[in-house]
Amino acid sequence: MKTKEMDAALQKLVDKDVIVDLVHRYSFYFDHRRFEEVTMIFTEDCVIDYGRGIAPLIQGRAELAALLSNADATGFLGTSHHNANVWITFDGPDRADVATSLYAWHHAPQGPNPRVWGYYYDKVVRAGDGWLIAYRQLRIGGQENFDIEWIPLIER
Amino acid sequence: MKTKEMDAALQKLVDKDVIVDLVHRYSFYFDHRRFEEVTMIFTEDCVIDYGRGIAPLIQGRAELAALLSNADATGFLGTSHHNANVWITFDGPDRADVATSLYAWHHAPQGPNPRVWGYYYDKVVRAGDGWLIAYRQLRIGGQENFDIEWIPLIER
Amino acid sequence: MKTKEMDAALQKLVDKDVIVDLVHRYSFYFDHRRFEEVTMIFTEDCVIDYGRGIAPLIQGRAELAALLSNADATGFLGTSHHNANVWITFDGPDRADVATSLYAWHHAPQGPNPRVWGYYYDKVVRAGDGWLIAYRQLRIGGQENFDIEWIPLIER
Repeated sequence: MKTKEMDAALQKLVDKDVIVDLVHRYSFYFDHRRFEEVTMIFTEDCVIDYGRGIAPLIQGRAELAALLSNADATGFLGTSHHNANVWITFDGPDRADVATSLYAWHHAPQGPNPRVWGYYYDKVVRAGDGWLIAYRQLRIGGQENFDIEWIPLIER
Repeated sequence: MKTKEMDAALQKLVDKDVIVDLVHRYSFYFDHRRFEEVTMIFTEDCVIDYGRGIAPLIQGRAELAALLSNADATGFLGTSHHNANVWITFDGPDRADVATSLYAWHHAPQGPNPRVWGYYYDKVVRAGDGWLIAYRQLRIGGQENFDIEWIPLIER
Repeated sequence: MKTKEMDAALQKLVDKDVIVDLVHRYSFYFDHRRFEEVTMIFTEDCVIDYGRGIAPLIQGRAELAALLSNADATGFLGTSHHNANVWITFDGPDRADVATSLYAWHHAPQGPNPRVWGYYYDKVVRAGDGWLIAYRQLRIGGQENFDIEWIPLIER
């Protein structure tokens, strides 16, 4: 490769590496109940759509923080957000679409433990030295013991 | 590193990145029932061995397309193909072996949902600007509610 | 990027690639019951803490080998160690902390199959041309049919 090509190829790999870490850090912080750090992965004016069964459309980091502040009191005893198949597609140098397969297990206070299988659809943006999630939508392809209103993975 | 070494190291990372995306795209397209795009991830003369419980040995992209054309009518309501541990070993500049841990969940039309845990063993080849899967074998280490004829993960 | 910056960025990606493979190879070899190769992923003087329900603190590769030599005779019929969210943080050029989300399924000889969800906390070190795991701790956030003494994911 020529130096210019190398530079472009390397920059792309560096960006992908940071974006993959972004996806991983969300799950890490969430499963460790470090909710303040979860919010810092998103842009100030982020939009998050977990589906109506979870919450109304979340607009902005402050609304996400408010939602998560209740998680310990009212939510699950524990969670495991397993990511797989992180697939990044760039839209210019400073924006990318990310699709990530999710298998999430939830420890219910009582009764069988809810599970979902789906995909996160993210839009990430370059922000200063790093990247942040500007938009996240969760689409669900299947569930066990978690039959609430989800955005379906596939429109039929 | 010297420029020549850097070039080789970078080329390897670029290739691994494309190969990992190949593995991820298979699952993405499969779980989204976009079966035509699934077939395009394989070489024209690919060989795919899912085990006799699923299908006879698949020889060529056309045979794969024929098998998948029935998936919506006769198959599961949904699937989740979770990849992990993608491990790539190069065999010269244009070929590589890939081992990928699979956890697959299937939404059954009725009754308990089948699950399998196993590994994909792939042989991938450079093809034009990208890479394609020339050979895929699925080996299964364990299952629940999916007791058909599999290729065992470990020969005993 | 300038050549010096490119060199540093590339070296970091090369190192991360090897470290991710280390995490993947552990699971690959373990799930394939290739226990001798599992031990070679660790430093000679490694320390491994799976929690008291699994084993006393393991000190050194020889102790790990001794523990694993009994695995086929007394253990599960099969395992699936699914890694996700591998998150690497460097501590100087030759050391790194790695957090990896684990979903592990175990095939019990009889009765329901045990499952755990947790995180590996690793310390990895550069060793010759590659990297090795010097310290591994398993912390568990939840389990089903595997209610033994674990190190909790979160201190409460």
